Amino acid sequence: MDIVLGIDIGGTKTKLGLVNKHGECLESTYFRTRDFLDLDEYLDKIYSTSMELKAKLPNSSNIIGCGIGAPNASSKTGCIVNASNLAWKGEVPLLKKLQERMPMPMKLMNDANAAALGEMQFGSAKGMQDFIAITLGTGLGSGIVINGQIVEGSGGLAGELGHISMTLGDGRETGLHVAGGLEAYVSATGLKRTILYMQSKYTEASRFRSIAYNDLHGEDITQAAEEGDFIALKAFDYTANILARALANFAAFSQPEAFILLGGLANSGKWIFDPLQKYFDSYLLEIYKDNIKLLKSGMPEKTAAVCGAASVIWMEIDK
Amino acid sequence: MDIVLGIDIGGTKTKLGLVNKHGECLESTYFRTRDFLDLDEYLDKIYSTSMELKAKLPNSSNIIGCGIGAPNASSKTGCIVNASNLAWKGEVPLLKKLQERMPMPMKLMNDANAAALGEMQFGSAKGMQDFIAITLGTGLGSGIVINGQIVEGSGGLAGELGHISMTLGDGRETGLHVAGGLEAYVSATGLKRTILYMQSKYTEASRFRSIAYNDLHGEDITQAAEEGDFIALKAFDYTANILARALANFAAFSQPEAFILLGGLANSGKWIFDPLQKYFDSYLLEIYKDNIKLLKSGMPEKTAAVCGAASVIWMEIDK
Repeated sequence: MDIVLGIDIGGTKTKLGLVNKHGECLESTYFRTRDFLDLDEYLDKIYSTSMELKAKLPNSSNIIGCGIGAPNASSKTGCIVNASNLAWKGEVPLLKKLQERMPMPMKLMNDANAAALGEMQFGSAKGMQDFIAITLGTGLGSGIVINGQIVEGSGGLAGELGHISMTLGDGRETGLHVAGGLEAYVSATGLKRTILYMQSKYTEASRFRSIAYNDLHGEDITQAAEEGDFIALKAFDYTANILARALANFAAFSQPEAFILLGGLANSGKWIFDPLQKYFDSYLLEIYKDNIKLLKSGMPEKTAAVCGAASVIWMEIDK
Repeated sequence: MDIVLGIDIGGTKTKLGLVNKHGECLESTYFRTRDFLDLDEYLDKIYSTSMELKAKLPNSSNIIGCGIGAPNASSKTGCIVNASNLAWKGEVPLLKKLQERMPMPMKLMNDANAAALGEMQFGSAKGMQDFIAITLGTGLGSGIVINGQIVEGSGGLAGELGHISMTLGDGRETGLHVAGGLEAYVSATGLKRTILYMQSKYTEASRFRSIAYNDLHGEDITQAAEEGDFIALKAFDYTANILARALANFAAFSQPEAFILLGGLANSGKWIFDPLQKYFDSYLLEIYKDNIKLLKSGMPEKTAAVCGAASVIWMEIDK
């Protein structure tokens, strides 16, 4: 049985998974990225963890390649460049160095692009040629597919929709100091910031008045919405409104068949999707009406990232 | 000698030209679109005008195809759909009906996309695989090229960047009632509206205080800027600022090698390009800095539209 090793490099966790051609993750594990400040030690750890994982499979299994998703990664150079939440600075030749340890067909790709390919092969975008996958985690990542291909741009760094400036609301800055930048509002972090903003704006009682920002988690906000918390409901409505306007703009760019939402904020379900659909319908240009879907990721949440990374290799084989 | 007939269907004029493989327009002419409210009479006029034009060429010439650019045209269906500045409403099967009169290889394309293909074959985008052409005329049209292909989207209507909402300034509406829509600010019409706005905002003397909106022409504004007119300079600065923010956003979408500006407003030269470059440099994400050019169209202004239309056919042949 042919198997692809998928690796998702995140600021907090490095996840590894063995994925078959149906997108099923047969074995998976993770370790903490920040435990390895030295790049070579980090890569040695990836190698040893991969070997441990492989040992769990039947002998008939054959690892045919390795797909890697990482922030600020360029598939053109095989490097990670100045990723703000990784310890290794400058241009990191990750692909080359990992291939020295594990000689096999290997591809590095921006993590949001890998997630989009995963949805196209195994998830909600099956059969689509034009769609945009948006990952709502710590920040907002995006993978744009046009004519069945990932849009990488002239330098491999296209699809940074988190840093689109909407100059809506109060012109909140992103981590890259873009005023009114989308991810400052629309991400797990953005939602938390909006919980603060709504407490400053309104005087209604809320469970959040006794929770400090640093103690606040996305799941708490969903839970509070379930219980009818005024501030939580306002925060979801505000977030959905801004995301809807952004998606209506993106529609005018590439007229996708669907937007697919992944990540923490997308897991809030109807609390984000219901107001999003309402505002999206009101902002979308008439010529696009009723032809662009808003969908949730079709991948199992826990293994979506490694399946996405593995799909980078599976896609090549399917061609 | 092989020749392609290029036809540009505009709300005011219908332009026809005979274009050789070097993008040179050998013969051209035009007639007034609005003189033909009946579609069949209009198509008969295109046919007779084409024959007159062809008669001017040496006998050795051979018309090998016809490319047509038109507003709201879909290359997938060969139809024009509800173009606001054309008399024929609903879905107009232009390609089919014209081909009945002139049987030859024929392609219909959105006019802004045809302009982009023209720049790629014959103009400022020669050799580029990723760029965005923006036509600043009555409205703002856009043709997006990614991986060497025009982006048409799932329904052939992608690239409506004039209706992106920036919600900047006073939230001015486009013709499609998009609040803060880009073309409401950035187009020949948008610049005229800004001349009004600046007169309302400031009290400085200006030649425009004695010119009514309906008597105002784009060339007057360029001329006034040359003479140091306060309102004209403010208007160019304001327009450039909004366009710069929009282009910085578009860069985060597809990381193009260049933005190419065409049409009336682009002809204002340094009055638009100088402030545009300044603001663009300040808004562009660090990762894209110094790698995205702002260029003026490389096509002769008078025949750019028919050359663009003809390039739709030449491009096919070059493949």
